[in-house]
Amino acid sequence: MANKKELKKVNIAEIKDPTFLKDLSYAELDLLSKDICEYIVDKTAINGGHLSSNLGVIDATIALCRSFDFTKDKIIFDVGHQCYTYKILTGRSLERLRKKDGVSGFQKMSESPYDHFECGHSSTSISVAKGMAVTRDLNKEDYSVVAFIGDASFANGLAFEGLNNLTNGNNKVIIVLNDNDMSITKPVGGLAKTFRKLSNSSLYRRSKHRYQRIMKKTRFGRWILGWTGAIKNWFKRHVMAMNVFDNIGLAYIGPVDGHNIKSMEAAFKKAKTYDKSVVIHIKTIKGKGYKFAENEDNGKWHGVSGFDKETGKINTNENLVSWSTIYSKAILEEMANRPEAVAVIPATAVGSELQPVFEFYPTRSFDVGIAEEHALTMSGGLAASGKHPIVSIYSTFLQRAFDELSHDIARMNLNATILIDRAGLVGEDGNTHQGIYDEPFLLATPNTVVTMASRESEAFALFKESFNNHGVFCIRYPRSKMLPSNKREELSFGKWKKELSGKDTAIVSVGPLTLDLKKLLEENKKEVSLYNAIYMKPMDDEIISKELVKYNRVIIYDAYSVENGFAQYLSVKLVTLGYKGEIIIKSIPDVFVNHASINEQLDGFHLQPEDILKLL
Amino acid sequence: MANKKELKKVNIAEIKDPTFLKDLSYAELDLLSKDICEYIVDKTAINGGHLSSNLGVIDATIALCRSFDFTKDKIIFDVGHQCYTYKILTGRSLERLRKKDGVSGFQKMSESPYDHFECGHSSTSISVAKGMAVTRDLNKEDYSVVAFIGDASFANGLAFEGLNNLTNGNNKVIIVLNDNDMSITKPVGGLAKTFRKLSNSSLYRRSKHRYQRIMKKTRFGRWILGWTGAIKNWFKRHVMAMNVFDNIGLAYIGPVDGHNIKSMEAAFKKAKTYDKSVVIHIKTIKGKGYKFAENEDNGKWHGVSGFDKETGKINTNENLVSWSTIYSKAILEEMANRPEAVAVIPATAVGSELQPVFEFYPTRSFDVGIAEEHALTMSGGLAASGKHPIVSIYSTFLQRAFDELSHDIARMNLNATILIDRAGLVGEDGNTHQGIYDEPFLLATPNTVVTMASRESEAFALFKESFNNHGVFCIRYPRSKMLPSNKREELSFGKWKKELSGKDTAIVSVGPLTLDLKKLLEENKKEVSLYNAIYMKPMDDEIISKELVKYNRVIIYDAYSVENGFAQYLSVKLVTLGYKGEIIIKSIPDVFVNHASINEQLDGFHLQPEDILKLL
Repeated sequence: MANKKELKKVNIAEIKDPTFLKDLSYAELDLLSKDICEYIVDKTAINGGHLSSNLGVIDATIALCRSFDFTKDKIIFDVGHQCYTYKILTGRSLERLRKKDGVSGFQKMSESPYDHFECGHSSTSISVAKGMAVTRDLNKEDYSVVAFIGDASFANGLAFEGLNNLTNGNNKVIIVLNDNDMSITKPVGGLAKTFRKLSNSSLYRRSKHRYQRIMKKTRFGRWILGWTGAIKNWFKRHVMAMNVFDNIGLAYIGPVDGHNIKSMEAAFKKAKTYDKSVVIHIKTIKGKGYKFAENEDNGKWHGVSGFDKETGKINTNENLVSWSTIYSKAILEEMANRPEAVAVIPATAVGSELQPVFEFYPTRSFDVGIAEEHALTMSGGLAASGKHPIVSIYSTFLQRAFDELSHDIARMNLNATILIDRAGLVGEDGNTHQGIYDEPFLLATPNTVVTMASRESEAFALFKESFNNHGVFCIRYPRSKMLPSNKREELSFGKWKKELSGKDTAIVSVGPLTLDLKKLLEENKKEVSLYNAIYMKPMDDEIISKELVKYNRVIIYDAYSVENGFAQYLSVKLVTLGYKGEIIIKSIPDVFVNHASINEQLDGFHLQPEDILKLL
Repeated sequence: MANKKELKKVNIAEIKDPTFLKDLSYAELDLLSKDICEYIVDKTAINGGHLSSNLGVIDATIALCRSFDFTKDKIIFDVGHQCYTYKILTGRSLERLRKKDGVSGFQKMSESPYDHFECGHSSTSISVAKGMAVTRDLNKEDYSVVAFIGDASFANGLAFEGLNNLTNGNNKVIIVLNDNDMSITKPVGGLAKTFRKLSNSSLYRRSKHRYQRIMKKTRFGRWILGWTGAIKNWFKRHVMAMNVFDNIGLAYIGPVDGHNIKSMEAAFKKAKTYDKSVVIHIKTIKGKGYKFAENEDNGKWHGVSGFDKETGKINTNENLVSWSTIYSKAILEEMANRPEAVAVIPATAVGSELQPVFEFYPTRSFDVGIAEEHALTMSGGLAASGKHPIVSIYSTFLQRAFDELSHDIARMNLNATILIDRAGLVGEDGNTHQGIYDEPFLLATPNTVVTMASRESEAFALFKESFNNHGVFCIRYPRSKMLPSNKREELSFGKWKKELSGKDTAIVSVGPLTLDLKKLLEENKKEVSLYNAIYMKPMDDEIISKELVKYNRVIIYDAYSVENGFAQYLSVKLVTLGYKGEIIIKSIPDVFVNHASINEQLDGFHLQPEDILKLL
């Protein structure tokens, strides 16, 4: 064994591309792995980002980059946020990770020719890989297409559709199933059990060898063994191979130690020799190498906002509370009084601060995993049988369940509360996660209420109102924090609030920025009216028809949506009422919004309260 | 055996509820089954509807209604269009099937207390059943929840998510897997192979018995047999049971002959005794009992518009062609010239008349089954690797792939052509299938073009243009027919057509009704301008800013969408240009639209060309 002193140490800052990896010994690779771990911890401590998942796949990424040539082979990192090591090995610095004009936290085609696709939402990689493999085969080209996907993402419907379709035609894809026994929180569902079974399948191999050893000891035994050849073959074909993958016609290799680079290289090499699609099942440890992340089991190290590396203390301002926390409290309160209330969460319990709900109401709270469609349709079943489902979901993920919200709940005018977390600009996660596209489709869905609170007290009132038989009651809230007031108030259904009274100009504003704007207008002594449009649908027809139409100018300020949302919806209402004054729309334009801080994103679109002030 | 003359004959018209079934002998049930078959063929021949799937499940429905009490037990028919026998047995006449104010072609809660949910889109039943089972168990009630689902629907991601989540918690659901070896066309994917395997599993049972017989003949054999008990148990646990369902923790019964009522009753009885969720795999013959439907394998008897019962000739006006046919021709033409073009279809090849595409370009055409999400994401992979995917999908099903269209194609500004069939009101299929909700979310998706042709020649021109690097190019077309013109024309990207020149009033109209309106305006010598808004996004800014703003009145006529679509989009454009004239929106209001003919639906909303004329 090489002396440690002789090991070649790689300077991470000088990496240009992964070719250097081939010249390193396994001991040197292990050293590199540790250095990358430290580098990722350092950079994430400063910039924030996805930590545990990235630490878990350092070794696998090294093995992949040694086994494949991604200048011609393709790799798709499912969800994409575990690609930090890949970025490092392909010559990208994490100094400005997730910062404006720095590298994205996801694969990004504009960043590097090594990035062949961009994921963000879960479970797309297999379908993407199938598409690329079809292209390759139609063009009679020769390269590998690798989908790198975690066990939690694997349990989503889209991944299943991709997997199911893989065996139609013979477009070979190599799937690396990164099984870390943990999604954002714990994985759920039957598929997870299957993975456990596969991991234990050496039990079968041992049994079979023992049987053969015994039988071979006697002539009769050997005869039996020979005679039962047919059964053995059947046995082999249907048992050894008959796992969930073989069932649908895919080859399976594994489980492989996802921290043993040599073992993984052997598996990848073997996979290359197969003439059909293959699943390589690697077992990894999420958070590996950073003790705080490695030892946790509640998902708090999944995505972090920056932390102290030595103490593991995550940066937070303890005086501030998030909207998630407020709605979590609201759920707890209402569930105490409403036995019909049931919470359904697609894997975002930690992100949306809902752990207390699961603790207090374990039998009435359901984490269904990364299964947004199922979450909504199951909620339809709950509602049709007399329960009141509360679904908590990120705006960007609700896109995937739009059909189910419409077809399986709203269409039958069933009652449900939909808490839409991270509505509006989301900052550093960038364009895969923006929560700005839900208003257009929600406002166009019949039997649906769309709301957004600007104050904590409104949030509680809205949540309470959502149980009063209004159909699908959506409550949007952004990724921002506030000083808690602990105040409560009553709100009337469908009513706006007049925050300021003025003349000539009325501003109709949505969400928490309304309060910042109010403060600014007061400070600057602007004599304009400010309406807080808590209800986007139904709108406050009385205010609109009796007050709003009388102003010379109406500014609609919704910094939490693209223009096709509430801003258009209200504009057209004014138009159909014959309003002839000026209408100014201040919402997000028709673009996908890249990563930067939320403030920088608002600056870029001139959507800060200060920008509204400038109009006056 | 009872003499045929003694068999009790049921008068279908007099059925009130399914209780009478218990008094019939199996021979009488078979007679009833035949009568129901004839009744369904008769009524569907007149009213149109889903035929093959309904004929296939007559016996299974009888068995279900004898085995369960659906005044307390719940049943969810997945996709729902195979519930005709259920409607008959629960006392509903099919005389006015799918007609205005007649019974719906789907389960409908407002029709009968026997309908516990409404499906329409595929693969929702398992999730719904899970929700209902959770309600039951939280309420400590005692009833069965049955999801009745076909093999093709089973292969969709949502069904998988439901199935995967079933084993989380112990909320028992009975799944009846109706395996007819055929979806709308043929089922596709690995799961279908699994079903075949299961059907052949008696092979294993035979092998095992032969082995045991031989072994038991000798003392040593018996010893071996005893010794290998551990292996046998393992064998039994891991082989007999280890199919795709057991893998994820569900019990499995089957395959059962889906035309043997007695066998199915036995299976249902057994299923009731299980303490966990169970899949009962029944094998049925689609179209059973009506020779034309039984013998087909191309799906044309899936949904029919009325036919001659004796000859099997389906009613069509041979002079007319559908928009589907036109776009099918367009695909054929372009694929000949564009090797990069690849067609991806989620199970609607027959409905969208795309069989010729599969015949001419078998290697470049992909039917991915009922997997809308996969269809779009796979297309993202195709586009990212240099192909130009053409996705053909119904408007209503595109709802399920909105996230994939946005996140996996548009976000990366990849090129794809999306043919959106059955856009607008769809008539008799009713509220589960309306194609009127896509405009709001498509118009709000960056890098996306939204168009609709009014003439055949425009259709060809749009389709051709869609290959010119415009990102996601959506072409909507309705469920209507026309006299073919075989004309061709050139169109400029983003440009509208001025069909009529007048003054004072401008009508901006979308889609084929534009031509009906034009004719009517000419006949009535109305001096108004008529613009054909072929491009909804991007709009024709030149016409809007230079011409449209000059009229005193602009009528926006889009009878193919809810108001939040193009009508709002254009209104706001006018508003932001400072337009002070009158804007009148003629689009579909904010409701879910029940079944009736398309004309009746248009009448109901005053959206006929004649209604526009009345405004002038």
